[in-house]
Amino acid sequence: MRLADHDGRATLLVEDGGVDVATASDGRFGPDIQALYDEWPAFLEFAEGAGAFPSVAVDEARLRNPVPRPRQVFAIGLNYRAHAAESGMEVPSTPATFTKFPACLTGPGAEVALPSGNVDWEVELVAVIGTRADRVAEADGWAHVAGITVGQDLSERVVQLAAGGQFSLGKSYRGFGPMGPVLVTPDEVDDPDDLALGCALDG
Amino acid sequence: MRLADHDGRATLLVEDGGVDVATASDGRFGPDIQALYDEWPAFLEFAEGAGAFPSVAVDEARLRNPVPRPRQVFAIGLNYRAHAAESGMEVPSTPATFTKFPACLTGPGAEVALPSGNVDWEVELVAVIGTRADRVAEADGWAHVAGITVGQDLSERVVQLAAGGQFSLGKSYRGFGPMGPVLVTPDEVDDPDDLALGCALDG
Repeated sequence: MRLADHDGRATLLVEDGGVDVATASDGRFGPDIQALYDEWPAFLEFAEGAGAFPSVAVDEARLRNPVPRPRQVFAIGLNYRAHAAESGMEVPSTPATFTKFPACLTGPGAEVALPSGNVDWEVELVAVIGTRADRVAEADGWAHVAGITVGQDLSERVVQLAAGGQFSLGKSYRGFGPMGPVLVTPDEVDDPDDLALGCALDG
Repeated sequence: MRLADHDGRATLLVEDGGVDVATASDGRFGPDIQALYDEWPAFLEFAEGAGAFPSVAVDEARLRNPVPRPRQVFAIGLNYRAHAAESGMEVPSTPATFTKFPACLTGPGAEVALPSGNVDWEVELVAVIGTRADRVAEADGWAHVAGITVGQDLSERVVQLAAGGQFSLGKSYRGFGPMGPVLVTPDEVDDPDDLALGCALDG
């Protein structure tokens, strides 16, 4: 399943456009995409039959952040060796877990005003948790993931390292968390543990 | 104004008990206390006249966290000199800003299971933001504060310092953020910039 926020309305992306969730479900789900994650298993059940509903045209430029109001954002720093080396930092034995404060999240096509000349960027895999995950065994992790999407992690490097070494503030200026445009459920990919991410600059 | 969550219902505390917000407002506000912060100026206006409504008995043991689902939690570390010295750390020039992940928040009377023998505690002043605060001048800060309450900041010190030095994870075990029981608006105190906090252990 591929889910997006099309101009403020939860929309299932299908081959020839999109299915408006609120219309197709007669108001049972949507239009607020964020509310779907609160009842994810029930929504998945509904979505299985959504291919039968009439589709509407989708304008890619109107796709917004598919997770606009997450309860919490866990950001894992220095999570692969090449990045730790590039940053001149040691690979931590426990994941370096900070946050991007949720108010910094924005849509995939956002124009972001840079607060200084010290802003860096990194492409990120974003996993959206769909069911309560508390003390979960590593092998059971994917069962709690509603879907994955792509994010940009903008960082004001001076503030990131100055704030007592706490990363979160320098990574949370307004607009520093573009996300989306599409949430993809894990069953849509061959192997969710083996995904390639890319980032193109100026084309 | 003194506001609390009494057994799941937003309640204004008055001299002889509490005014149930949903009942007194005929459903316009409450019973969900968190939703009040989304329309704080309108709620304040309603609350001014709430003294005229009949009050109900309040059981202190049934008061919960007055801010159960904040959008984001900004935690400021090493924010006074004595604490930095006690921690053997330098006072940072930029505030060390981390988060307590919102799922760790709990009520004021919570029983918290400690995950190890390395758990420390600190009493904290909690300021609850009631109106959008973006690039606010220091002098205008209090105008955005809905109210203040008290919190406990539990920390698993080994995880706090191990996780690449990022504090947030070790401060966010389940139950590590007891809050409340009462949200007090700034006008209720003589000088909100001069408040004393205390923490008693084992009576």
